Amino acid sequence: MEARPRANLLAALIVPRPIAWVTTTNSTGRTNAAPFSFFNLMSGTPPVLCIGMGARDGRPKDSARNIEETGEFVVNLVTDACAPLMNATAIDFDAEVDELAEVGIDTVPSALVKPPRVAASPVGLECALTQIVPIGAGQRIIIGQVLAVHVEDEYVRDADRGHIDTASLAPIGRLNGGWYARTTSRFHMPQVSESEWRSRGTATAGDPHDD
Amino acid sequence: MEARPRANLLAALIVPRPIAWVTTTNSTGRTNAAPFSFFNLMSGTPPVLCIGMGARDGRPKDSARNIEETGEFVVNLVTDACAPLMNATAIDFDAEVDELAEVGIDTVPSALVKPPRVAASPVGLECALTQIVPIGAGQRIIIGQVLAVHVEDEYVRDADRGHIDTASLAPIGRLNGGWYARTTSRFHMPQVSESEWRSRGTATAGDPHDD
Ligand SMILES: Cc1cc2nc3c(=O)[nH]c(=O)nc-3n(C[C@H](O)[C@H](O)[C@H](O)COP(=O)(O)O)c2cc1C
Ligand SMILES: Cc1cc2nc3c(=O)[nH]c(=O)nc-3n(C[C@H](O)[C@H](O)[C@H](O)COP(=O)(O)O)c2cc1C
Repeated sequence: MEARPRANLLAALIVPRPIAWVTTTNSTGRTNAAPFSFFNLMSGTPPVLCIGMGARDGRPKDSARNIEETGEFVVNLVTDACAPLMNATAIDFDAEVDELAEVGIDTVPSALVKPPRVAASPVGLECALTQIVPIGAGQRIIIGQVLAVHVEDEYVRDADRGHIDTASLAPIGRLNGGWYARTTSRFHMPQVSESEWRSRGTATAGDPHDD
Repeated sequence: MEARPRANLLAALIVPRPIAWVTTTNSTGRTNAAPFSFFNLMSGTPPVLCIGMGARDGRPKDSARNIEETGEFVVNLVTDACAPLMNATAIDFDAEVDELAEVGIDTVPSALVKPPRVAASPVGLECALTQIVPIGAGQRIIIGQVLAVHVEDEYVRDADRGHIDTASLAPIGRLNGGWYARTTSRFHMPQVSESEWRSRGTATAGDPHDD
């Protein structure tokens, strides 16, 4: 298969993808924001996430370059409410343009890293770069450790146990083309143990039920 | 924060996660299947994906060990219909148990790699291991290259252009705890160019509209 249709195909199949709305600062302190859906948690302990960042005209995108230069970034999560703002930050503005001012994005300072959080996002994950893995054609995987997590109070159910009201937070996921999925159509299917499995016979394991 | 609640917190926030239902074979040829949602595409060109695989009692999970030993795996995607079967393969059966026979999973041979595809899954991605990145505490990131893609005919819209009917394929995503999201509640918000942005003034960029 040719590269272009193959890339379309894979991006249409591997869905829904969570979205990292990444804020970075360059060496002169200017803030940049851009969305990335080649993104996921890789491990809870240690708290590690990764992002696949592409190149533009053979050079790393601004976010990738800033992370390489400063070792820091913030992952802001995206809900319905901030989707249009997020989309505006995917525009490839001229280098002289102050993207955040142009798009109208307010930020709040982070606690441990220099890049600020996006004020409109209910969740901000402050991260430190741990490794860059080049994967060919100018693409790279950015691996980072989460240093601090900010969640708006209304979505926190039990801070000590790390319980979040994911249903009302409802982050959106990326599908193919310009499509996004809401996380509002949900079902519950708990993991089953070997003994539960044996005692139920062989039918289904954890019969799904709707929300 | 303690490790356990921190892991819960991150898994509840970074959603929806696509699910890789991974088939592998061990050195004696026995097939294993298990789901992994610390998974995503990292790049379309080259076609690279990654999976965060944990450890059990300090040793890599069977899938990770098999991939390390054989350099091959298949990522089967998960829809509503195969969710209960997928969930059964997350059971930690005793090592002597033939998991696939026990759970009742039929497979079909792959074209280029030894691990078979899951017959019940509409999409199978045959992959070759390219790199293992250890990230601490026995966890590792498995980075692989996609060698071949199988998609059931009914979901293929235009094979030459890599267009898929993602809406009817409707893979499910992982949320927190035992929750899953369907990708049926969708909206469309195309990317905008700098000139489109300038000509619309400053309002929203690509106003979302529902499916
Ligand atoms: C929802 C969404 C997801 C995206 N995901 C990625 C991605 O995972 N990797 C990537 O290289 N570009 C991705 N893009 C495109 C980048 O956001 C875009 O190239 C952006 O201009 C990069 O900005 P920067 O040069 O300031 O870093 C995505 C765009 C959108 C709208
Ligand atoms: C939907 C779902 C997603 C999962 N994602 C992961 C994951 O990303 N990483 C991981 O280490 N375990 C994950 N698990 C748990 C593994 O599937 C489970 O430990 C399995 O028994 C491993 O099998 P294996 O030892 O045969 O490789 C997940 C379980 C479920 C149900």
